[in-house]
Amino acid sequence: MALLSVLTPVLAVILCLVIGFILVKRREPETTSSARSKAKTDFRPWVDQDLQDDTEITAREEEDSEWVDSNEEDLPHVPYSPLRYPENTMLQRSQDFYTLMNQRRSVRFISPEPVPQEVINNVVHTAGTAPSGAHTEPWTFVVVSDPETKHQIRLIVEEEEEVNYRQRMGDKWVHDLAKLKTNWIKEYLDVAPYLILIFKQTYGTLPNGKKKTHYYNEISVSIACGILLAALQNAGLVTVTTTPLNCGPQLRLLLKRPANEKLLMLLPVGYPASDATVPDLKRKPLDDIMVHI
Amino acid sequence: MALLSVLTPVLAVILCLVIGFILVKRREPETTSSARSKAKTDFRPWVDQDLQDDTEITAREEEDSEWVDSNEEDLPHVPYSPLRYPENTMLQRSQDFYTLMNQRRSVRFISPEPVPQEVINNVVHTAGTAPSGAHTEPWTFVVVSDPETKHQIRLIVEEEEEVNYRQRMGDKWVHDLAKLKTNWIKEYLDVAPYLILIFKQTYGTLPNGKKKTHYYNEISVSIACGILLAALQNAGLVTVTTTPLNCGPQLRLLLKRPANEKLLMLLPVGYPASDATVPDLKRKPLDDIMVHI
Repeated sequence: MALLSVLTPVLAVILCLVIGFILVKRREPETTSSARSKAKTDFRPWVDQDLQDDTEITAREEEDSEWVDSNEEDLPHVPYSPLRYPENTMLQRSQDFYTLMNQRRSVRFISPEPVPQEVINNVVHTAGTAPSGAHTEPWTFVVVSDPETKHQIRLIVEEEEEVNYRQRMGDKWVHDLAKLKTNWIKEYLDVAPYLILIFKQTYGTLPNGKKKTHYYNEISVSIACGILLAALQNAGLVTVTTTPLNCGPQLRLLLKRPANEKLLMLLPVGYPASDATVPDLKRKPLDDIMVHI
Repeated sequence: MALLSVLTPVLAVILCLVIGFILVKRREPETTSSARSKAKTDFRPWVDQDLQDDTEITAREEEDSEWVDSNEEDLPHVPYSPLRYPENTMLQRSQDFYTLMNQRRSVRFISPEPVPQEVINNVVHTAGTAPSGAHTEPWTFVVVSDPETKHQIRLIVEEEEEVNYRQRMGDKWVHDLAKLKTNWIKEYLDVAPYLILIFKQTYGTLPNGKKKTHYYNEISVSIACGILLAALQNAGLVTVTTTPLNCGPQLRLLLKRPANEKLLMLLPVGYPASDATVPDLKRKPLDDIMVHI
């Protein structure tokens, strides 16, 4: 007892230190989740933060699977009887369209020759006929032909790409890409008569000023890009599908796009250069991509 | 001092309890993140778990922004000189293609009339010409014409949709959807001569048997779907873009698809019914979707 009495202050001090230590430790896990993601970001800076949004994940929450417009109830239904082709005509058209589309290749060597603006208007207008979740049409096509703006875009993209390759991708990647004869120099961003930057609108604004989430916006805009690629090929123009890493925020600022728009793709558009080359790639045969039941 | 002596055991007990309590509390946050996501899942069962994968998020980690094939270095480059149209021809083609695509509508009333299989082969083959991250071509098009299989698909989709509407969407949604005159009955799944189920391959298998992540697989497959929709419209066929909620696993099982494939879209395909109607929707004018700089 006497011993205890003597030890009491010591005991108290030790226990206080222990409790203090434990309390300090306790605080850490509380900030872990945010801290972890932050750390992860710092550790994997090449992950494009700008494209991340949870609209795709929340999409299934309220969206009808048929992508019907939630305002359709206010709309009258009208008869729909599109042009119908005889079987042999339909067959020929489907064959011809395949032949045309199968000639499309991603081309990085674009001619500086001018292309009529009206053709660009038409292909963008065509892309805008794509279906979209709840008919939100969540896309903005920024068409850049101004040389100075194109150059600013090039500087932003090349700076990021150089960092991507040099620092983020690691030596192995720089080596592989060197072998690919591609690097962070994107001459076509200056040379191509047009750059089409496709932004997805992650949300819209309702008449009452409230935010309206655009469900399936990334899938919808990607479908529109598929139709855009078809329209470009149909017009005899070329492009290369690019998704510049981490350039979204800077490009959005440069192009004065609102905060609800995020860069999904950048397409340099024009005629192919007279000396354009493409890797001798083959596509999978039909049997490898289609299963018939 | 005597008082302290007497209190020591009590003090010790209290402090032990405090420490024990703190230690217990400390353990909780460690499991929080996983527990939270799980809780979230349980709390929001309508979120389609099957479509969730981190390939899009990790995409920017190792993927080249130009979607180049990481095997391209082994490929010779060949000259590329596609057909070039005179300006007025190009202009006319771009205008005609817009006019054709602008006639496309999502149609839920599909005719049971047979459609030549070769046309379906051609439109799927056309979809397969889409660009893809690292030329992985991460798509499988399952074309179903077998009546029994179509009916099985209908049962799976309708069961899930009914749950979606009745339980998951809440009373408000059931009400709205009733006003929409749509519900969980999907007659077209039996009636349409073809159902095309588009699966995205989230990863592939290398010759050495290792997994190969397919970067940008959802964007790539969505682009292919855009080209597929264009090909169907070009052939005079109709469809409605649907993304059945939570049916992926069951449909994958029914169609015997491997674990690396996830259902992205389901398209019923055929001629429009003679009495087909569509909501009288308008599309945004060009000025609302395009910005020229």
